[in-house]
Amino acid sequence: MYNFKNDYSEGGHPNILNRLIETNLTQQLGYGEDEYSTQAKKLLRENIDNPNADIYFVSGGTQTNLLVISTLLQVHEAVISAKTGHIFAHETGAIEATGHRVITIETNDGKIYPKDIDSTLQEYTLRPHVVKPRMVYISNSTEIGTIYTKSELTDLSTFCKEHNLLLFVDGARLGHALTAQNNDLKLSDISKLTDVFYIGGTKNGALLGEAIVFNNSDIAPDFDYALKQKGALLAKGRVLGIQFLELFRDNLYFDLAAHANKMAMKITNAIRQKGYSFLTDSTTNQIFPILPKEIIKRLEAKYLFYEWAVIDNNSSAVRIITSWATDENVVDEFISDLD
Amino acid sequence: MYNFKNDYSEGGHPNILNRLIETNLTQQLGYGEDEYSTQAKKLLRENIDNPNADIYFVSGGTQTNLLVISTLLQVHEAVISAKTGHIFAHETGAIEATGHRVITIETNDGKIYPKDIDSTLQEYTLRPHVVKPRMVYISNSTEIGTIYTKSELTDLSTFCKEHNLLLFVDGARLGHALTAQNNDLKLSDISKLTDVFYIGGTKNGALLGEAIVFNNSDIAPDFDYALKQKGALLAKGRVLGIQFLELFRDNLYFDLAAHANKMAMKITNAIRQKGYSFLTDSTTNQIFPILPKEIIKRLEAKYLFYEWAVIDNNSSAVRIITSWATDENVVDEFISDLD
Amino acid sequence: MYNFKNDYSEGGHPNILNRLIETNLTQQLGYGEDEYSTQAKKLLRENIDNPNADIYFVSGGTQTNLLVISTLLQVHEAVISAKTGHIFAHETGAIEATGHRVITIETNDGKIYPKDIDSTLQEYTLRPHVVKPRMVYISNSTEIGTIYTKSELTDLSTFCKEHNLLLFVDGARLGHALTAQNNDLKLSDISKLTDVFYIGGTKNGALLGEAIVFNNSDIAPDFDYALKQKGALLAKGRVLGIQFLELFRDNLYFDLAAHANKMAMKITNAIRQKGYSFLTDSTTNQIFPILPKEIIKRLEAKYLFYEWAVIDNNSSAVRIITSWATDENVVDEFISDLD
Amino acid sequence: MYNFKNDYSEGGHPNILNRLIETNLTQQLGYGEDEYSTQAKKLLRENIDNPNADIYFVSGGTQTNLLVISTLLQVHEAVISAKTGHIFAHETGAIEATGHRVITIETNDGKIYPKDIDSTLQEYTLRPHVVKPRMVYISNSTEIGTIYTKSELTDLSTFCKEHNLLLFVDGARLGHALTAQNNDLKLSDISKLTDVFYIGGTKNGALLGEAIVFNNSDIAPDFDYALKQKGALLAKGRVLGIQFLELFRDNLYFDLAAHANKMAMKITNAIRQKGYSFLTDSTTNQIFPILPKEIIKRLEAKYLFYEWAVIDNNSSAVRIITSWATDENVVDEFISDLD
Repeated sequence: MYNFKNDYSEGGHPNILNRLIETNLTQQLGYGEDEYSTQAKKLLRENIDNPNADIYFVSGGTQTNLLVISTLLQVHEAVISAKTGHIFAHETGAIEATGHRVITIETNDGKIYPKDIDSTLQEYTLRPHVVKPRMVYISNSTEIGTIYTKSELTDLSTFCKEHNLLLFVDGARLGHALTAQNNDLKLSDISKLTDVFYIGGTKNGALLGEAIVFNNSDIAPDFDYALKQKGALLAKGRVLGIQFLELFRDNLYFDLAAHANKMAMKITNAIRQKGYSFLTDSTTNQIFPILPKEIIKRLEAKYLFYEWAVIDNNSSAVRIITSWATDENVVDEFISDLD
Repeated sequence: MYNFKNDYSEGGHPNILNRLIETNLTQQLGYGEDEYSTQAKKLLRENIDNPNADIYFVSGGTQTNLLVISTLLQVHEAVISAKTGHIFAHETGAIEATGHRVITIETNDGKIYPKDIDSTLQEYTLRPHVVKPRMVYISNSTEIGTIYTKSELTDLSTFCKEHNLLLFVDGARLGHALTAQNNDLKLSDISKLTDVFYIGGTKNGALLGEAIVFNNSDIAPDFDYALKQKGALLAKGRVLGIQFLELFRDNLYFDLAAHANKMAMKITNAIRQKGYSFLTDSTTNQIFPILPKEIIKRLEAKYLFYEWAVIDNNSSAVRIITSWATDENVVDEFISDLD
Repeated sequence: MYNFKNDYSEGGHPNILNRLIETNLTQQLGYGEDEYSTQAKKLLRENIDNPNADIYFVSGGTQTNLLVISTLLQVHEAVISAKTGHIFAHETGAIEATGHRVITIETNDGKIYPKDIDSTLQEYTLRPHVVKPRMVYISNSTEIGTIYTKSELTDLSTFCKEHNLLLFVDGARLGHALTAQNNDLKLSDISKLTDVFYIGGTKNGALLGEAIVFNNSDIAPDFDYALKQKGALLAKGRVLGIQFLELFRDNLYFDLAAHANKMAMKITNAIRQKGYSFLTDSTTNQIFPILPKEIIKRLEAKYLFYEWAVIDNNSSAVRIITSWATDENVVDEFISDLD
Repeated sequence: MYNFKNDYSEGGHPNILNRLIETNLTQQLGYGEDEYSTQAKKLLRENIDNPNADIYFVSGGTQTNLLVISTLLQVHEAVISAKTGHIFAHETGAIEATGHRVITIETNDGKIYPKDIDSTLQEYTLRPHVVKPRMVYISNSTEIGTIYTKSELTDLSTFCKEHNLLLFVDGARLGHALTAQNNDLKLSDISKLTDVFYIGGTKNGALLGEAIVFNNSDIAPDFDYALKQKGALLAKGRVLGIQFLELFRDNLYFDLAAHANKMAMKITNAIRQKGYSFLTDSTTNQIFPILPKEIIKRLEAKYLFYEWAVIDNNSSAVRIITSWATDENVVDEFISDLD
């Protein structure tokens, strides 16, 4: 059975493993003070073209989201998210567990627009009987494979600044967004247009690890305390530093994401050519084709994937995810198995 | 400069790195459902001789402590710890951040005895104006290198049962405790005498990872939710499973700890022979010799370690920590540098 | 300007004030151990026909809700509420602030039915990536004036038991529900069919105060600790005890609610006779007539009330609330002002 | 049995009850927007000689403390208190329940001095492994009856400013402190020298109620949200406003406290004349005489009070508390019963 259920079925890119071995017995300071983490932060600051950024490495996305949001919000403040947003849909109430409401917006494409936020703000005016919206959380790419254009992100950024809202981008699949065929954003744009974002490692070739980027060092000057308090500060921080040191050497991070996208688009094109449609308009590594149930059944004999939504008696949308490690031969086989 | 500051200066044991590489491209389910984690849990259940144990792997000790304590305590309940206990002294208020007081006990040897708990219980009787003590947290080995005997742990266990207190052992350095020269406890004893404990990987040869063991599967049946909610559930759980699969193959875990202890005892004996005394009576891999300041100054030119406590104008206690990776040649050199 | 904005514009019923004065200098124990609280609890146990109930007095509804919910839920558990439910709509995220998600259900009539809960449960199955629904919160009367029938509450109760869900009734306006013309529930039914509920004092003649009723003393045996910890335990608990001792003497509580309902129904009938419709089908003391804007404007010159929802260019729904203290003369005047 | 156990055994001062009755049916806005609260705030601003103060009324002291502290501290910050401080000793971990450690200082007299804070700061330097001390909490009068002099409070204030620490005064018994024979502080001094304090009503003649005073409106501009979120915002805020409107009319608040102190000092002088000593040097309404056990036993037949601490086989310290309502005849009788 080949697994198309997610982009974390394999380990890490070999470069990372090799570097772990190569550096293994070199003594380093603990808790993120090691030289690999220091170098990786320097490298990231160059990549995002922002020397003023504060960068922290943690082990996973839920951890990132709860740390960032609970540190930046005061007790009565809330975060706005798409209803499909990972913090609302798949993190076991991690944000509420830190005391904050996630205010949700219904969307068709998994994306939030200024008009949506505007409507939400109107619903939360009866001070002090309602929470105070203070942050907008978006994912790029989104949980359903779509991406933000530079124009859309610029509009959001402007709106947020005008309304005293912090803008936070969940970049669990930021590599996939930035290498999508229809993308016009650069990593440096993300840094300029948002207050804080993260660069996902786990879903793009790391064994584990996400890089949290505060675009201005004034935003969360005491974030190190929060990291430790919430159990996110690894004693052997070197393990995280090395992930990003390797991922951002020679464009590897973007090459890996581009491969994943390419595999997904290959499947997308094949499915489209056969006349099937899609639940969402994805150009990244998560696709949601709507297929006849008999085909789904046949595919399930050889491949693992989620049946995402029942469309009608005869067809369902499924979710196929590709990754940096997806084997193109298997993709070709999958495509031929569609017939 | 050779680092004696802690036991996490190096990476992981080579067996672990090799296994990571060997298994790297084998697809696995995410979130701890991988086969390596399953095998590692089976192996641990055998090692602790308790088929009924529930085991979870997480990435670090603070994370472990806050997860276990916040899951097992109700809102008004508190945990009792030595004042030197890691949860009180070095975890940035992680327990309080989950809503619970850490009630501290002053100790000489870092250990808690029934009489100490008894005194504490007397101070917390004015219901409902005080919190309700509900758990006792101990570390073995302790934060100052001492260990519990089987008789002491049995007494604690009995006392806790009689007083409706849960007993939790922080085993960040459990390997070092169980291989100390004066130890008479086995891993299976720990499982029998406590409600929950953890087996520390990070400080004994893992890249990262601690194994949380609930000794009865009724204690925390929903712990998986808590893991995810607090950001502790790694997508690539295989990384953690492999650490313990290798550490508990062929007694490696205990061999590594024994090496660390042996190195510490070699230094201890040398220092003692030279007529110096110690701040605490450690038989594990953390030692606290009291040395003349001139010797300390000389050693600081070649070695990293903490000056722990000023004793008088002429001498201080320092903390020397050895590990699975400590080089015996350096230990010999250190000893000769004492003269 | 006469205030129809809420049912807490006046002070308390004179019987309460008189009793406060009469007992003022009698020394009593503090923190709810006074004899008036003890008597009031006895009286309530008789009224709800449940000698096994555990009763606590607190000062307000938000306090009640957050105390009950945070005490009964574990960290990963959530409460289900109508989107119009007070805990979601008007309590500043008080439940989330204690760490728990409020899962909302869209309703037309402010009420929750088993089928709604069933749908919600289906959405929260991806353990452990989602919170675990564990409680259903309803209000009777609801926030839009409707009430539950005995049959409806029985169905909910059965469904909740079958699905291991706690059922909690917010009774801020329980008196109004139980004296509505179409009500067939008794206070004893509420106690039999739910796990916990509260009897609202503030909105029905008390200066302040709500009575929390756990229908079984096993549900929250340590609730007294939570009361104190969350700042809800008044030193002079006598003040709260006396409210309920007077409200539940000689049926006063229900007489007061019946008066409020009668005033609301008088207005309702008058408005209906004039051919106007209503946003919700209320038989209690909150009504939501849809009126032409010109009439609204005229009424606003003499009366305070909320414009609740814009219906179209010419009309809006307004909210009119009556209370135990509403002057029937003013009601008559208001009715004549409609023309 | 006459109760000397506390200063909340009776109801409220008759002026308050009369005003409640007099205003009872006057309609007012809810949630603290009533005119009595507005007037009371104005009156308090005049009394503290600080037109820039932000004032809020809540129902009790624990509620006050948890609201103020949790609003002003960030997640990783802690508050410093005497070990005898109410937030540590008698509030069921209310502060920890909001996520913050209470760092304690051992004292002889219940008071904190700059040197104590300085030592504490030295213990909390290992960033980020320890919490960050950010607030100093003191009580005046203290929990053992002592008071701060103007010079002492000035020194504390200066030290706190120099070390970026907020200074918060728990004034549950502030009236008693400011009317003590050896007091040289005025209410306006408290406002000038601290960041936030509260003026206790419950223990000095109110039915309930504490007035929280932020001495600068920039400190907690969103405090109204926190009030509502934590269940502290009474619908009938008029009840609280009236307490302070009456207590601060014609110096009543200070007259009541002076009476309580006078009664305590009368007992103190009598006991001292008989040659007995005291556990603490109190000049306010809580006194801790050390008496022979036979006398204690005799007194217990007629009076309620706490046996506070066993001194030796023959004697114990007891706690006697007087209040605004203490009957001087009973005091005289108590004194004669000492023989």
